[in-house]
Amino acid sequence: MSSSFAPLQNDTFLRACLRQATDHTPVWLMRQAGRYLPEYCATRAQAGSFMGLATNVDYATEVTLQPLARYPLDAAILFSDILTVPDAMGLGLSFAQGEGPRFATPVRDETAVAKLAVPDLEKLRYVFDAVTSIRKALNGRVPLIGFSGSPWTLACYMVEGAGSDDYRLVKSMLYSRPDLMHRILAVNADAVAAYLNAQIDAGAQAVMVFDSWGGVLADGAFQEFSLAYTARVLAGLKRNGVDGKIVPRIVFTKGGGLWLEQMGQLDCEVLGLDWTMNLGKARALVGGQVGGAGKALQGNIDPNVLFAPPAAVEAEVRKVLESFGAPHSDTTRTGPTHIFNLGHGISQYTPPDHVTALVEAVHTHSRRMRV
Amino acid sequence: MSSSFAPLQNDTFLRACLRQATDHTPVWLMRQAGRYLPEYCATRAQAGSFMGLATNVDYATEVTLQPLARYPLDAAILFSDILTVPDAMGLGLSFAQGEGPRFATPVRDETAVAKLAVPDLEKLRYVFDAVTSIRKALNGRVPLIGFSGSPWTLACYMVEGAGSDDYRLVKSMLYSRPDLMHRILAVNADAVAAYLNAQIDAGAQAVMVFDSWGGVLADGAFQEFSLAYTARVLAGLKRNGVDGKIVPRIVFTKGGGLWLEQMGQLDCEVLGLDWTMNLGKARALVGGQVGGAGKALQGNIDPNVLFAPPAAVEAEVRKVLESFGAPHSDTTRTGPTHIFNLGHGISQYTPPDHVTALVEAVHTHSRRMRV
Repeated sequence: MSSSFAPLQNDTFLRACLRQATDHTPVWLMRQAGRYLPEYCATRAQAGSFMGLATNVDYATEVTLQPLARYPLDAAILFSDILTVPDAMGLGLSFAQGEGPRFATPVRDETAVAKLAVPDLEKLRYVFDAVTSIRKALNGRVPLIGFSGSPWTLACYMVEGAGSDDYRLVKSMLYSRPDLMHRILAVNADAVAAYLNAQIDAGAQAVMVFDSWGGVLADGAFQEFSLAYTARVLAGLKRNGVDGKIVPRIVFTKGGGLWLEQMGQLDCEVLGLDWTMNLGKARALVGGQVGGAGKALQGNIDPNVLFAPPAAVEAEVRKVLESFGAPHSDTTRTGPTHIFNLGHGISQYTPPDHVTALVEAVHTHSRRMRV
Repeated sequence: MSSSFAPLQNDTFLRACLRQATDHTPVWLMRQAGRYLPEYCATRAQAGSFMGLATNVDYATEVTLQPLARYPLDAAILFSDILTVPDAMGLGLSFAQGEGPRFATPVRDETAVAKLAVPDLEKLRYVFDAVTSIRKALNGRVPLIGFSGSPWTLACYMVEGAGSDDYRLVKSMLYSRPDLMHRILAVNADAVAAYLNAQIDAGAQAVMVFDSWGGVLADGAFQEFSLAYTARVLAGLKRNGVDGKIVPRIVFTKGGGLWLEQMGQLDCEVLGLDWTMNLGKARALVGGQVGGAGKALQGNIDPNVLFAPPAAVEAEVRKVLESFGAPHSDTTRTGPTHIFNLGHGISQYTPPDHVTALVEAVHTHSRRMRV
């Protein structure tokens, strides 16, 4: 199967994930294929709905590649949703017009929890087919990242039934019936590991776990109900892709900066950070030294910077690059590296030409920092 | 005027604010006078609206005292809203049924910013009259806390015009026109200082600055656009109340744990923390030693704990108390102290008898920890 994939031309992102020296800081953007792009909106209109888009291999391939046609990004990310796994568990995912995701049958009592099981992965075949299709379409241009929601983040949606601003239902279960919460999380962890492994088998060259709601937990609860299950996912993952190469694993906990040292103990290559964390401080805590162990760091500009004029975008990009400092340049050893990204998904209101300014500023300024 | 106020019977809260030893950990709850109490809902129904309640001295006094009739809390907090100051600036505050606050004329361009000024404090007379009325009604039972939103938090609402989940408008201004944002914040800081000073003159025995939205800012932006203006407020505050006693100043930045060391440099007595921060770590960073300088710490249980059964509430209370550890007990010197609170306002869905369990657990267990 690997023989069907073209050789990789731009390995900057994968090298940075493995803390190898690169000639510029690679950049990609969370939710880079999305509603801020008119071509995405056109394809989505054809598809009729978000799930119509995500479950159709041709559409998913088309929209994944759209941002790469506009911007010299250093990685592509599978177009999908973090909630495909609980949907395959039978919870009935839908996206109402202008609203977020919603589950028809949320998991709120002992009976519903008892019914949960790792889903038949055949129900997620559309995702794996999309991975293979996208990797072929990329034709070796940049690597393809697969992803999933974290066990805790999936549990939030599964119990709340939708987004929430106070997480009352899921936290009520957590504090009232921790046994039920642990059971949900164990099933989710095993399902997410199987799901990511199948993406790797289908051609994903890196995988990312989105712990989008880890940061809403209390200290102590985060370690017990989120971090431990992210670790369980990581322990279940394949280490090599279909081409035999290492598949770097990225963990992103939004709002997780206070727990960075504990996240530094995870068995993964990259930690994602949001904009509240100082990158220089993060590098000192978990970035490691040249020749020593550590994590590559990914992030972390505020997506709202993209509403400012291009000159201001460039200035903020420079601030973020400089807060990390010059990545190491020792080509014989590993050391601290930075992958530029937003600290959260790009807003649908973002002017596309401001993204041009951001990507160009990352490439230009990060090359200059290495001289 | 001070002669009209009865002597204070329970000074546990004020002593803990000043890092003096106490025989138990004082406790009060953010938004303790609120919709989870049926008696509050009854009074609000009489008043007709939230602002009808907040602007009427008798109603404001009545609802402030309601939680004290149910629970042996160690402090009362003025019943009001954080947005009274921009309302007095002429922005037209209202609370639609089932929604959050809304301003009729948000501040979104240079013309609107140029018009802003510190309001005539006479427009806020209803607040100061309520402070005096509440202090009299308390009759020395516990101290009364006055409060305001922070300059940045007020600016968020003033620019967005309402609550927001992405802060797009206010951050667009911040990154595009930092000059306008600085002008708003300077006016807000001077207005908040004058407002809190008038509350102190009216009888407030401690004051708190709610930086509810500081945590949404990027590292760097937080220091420039939130922390600096909180410092400007603090620099403008009176140090003594109408009875000549020190008025402790509390600063609470929700989501501000990553910046705790920098907040430790503020000229205030107490720092509030949300549930993401480990209290033991916070104590080590800013709590100081016996005989040394430092901040009292206030917080930080997750309000969602209150949805669990009383036994679970008690267990979580013990965890929070023990994460801080035993406060110092040296009656001759200052040292680390803890004021128990939630990490955010109490939810309207909270069962009132679970609050009974929380308050009792704080008092009982914290006494036990001092033996």
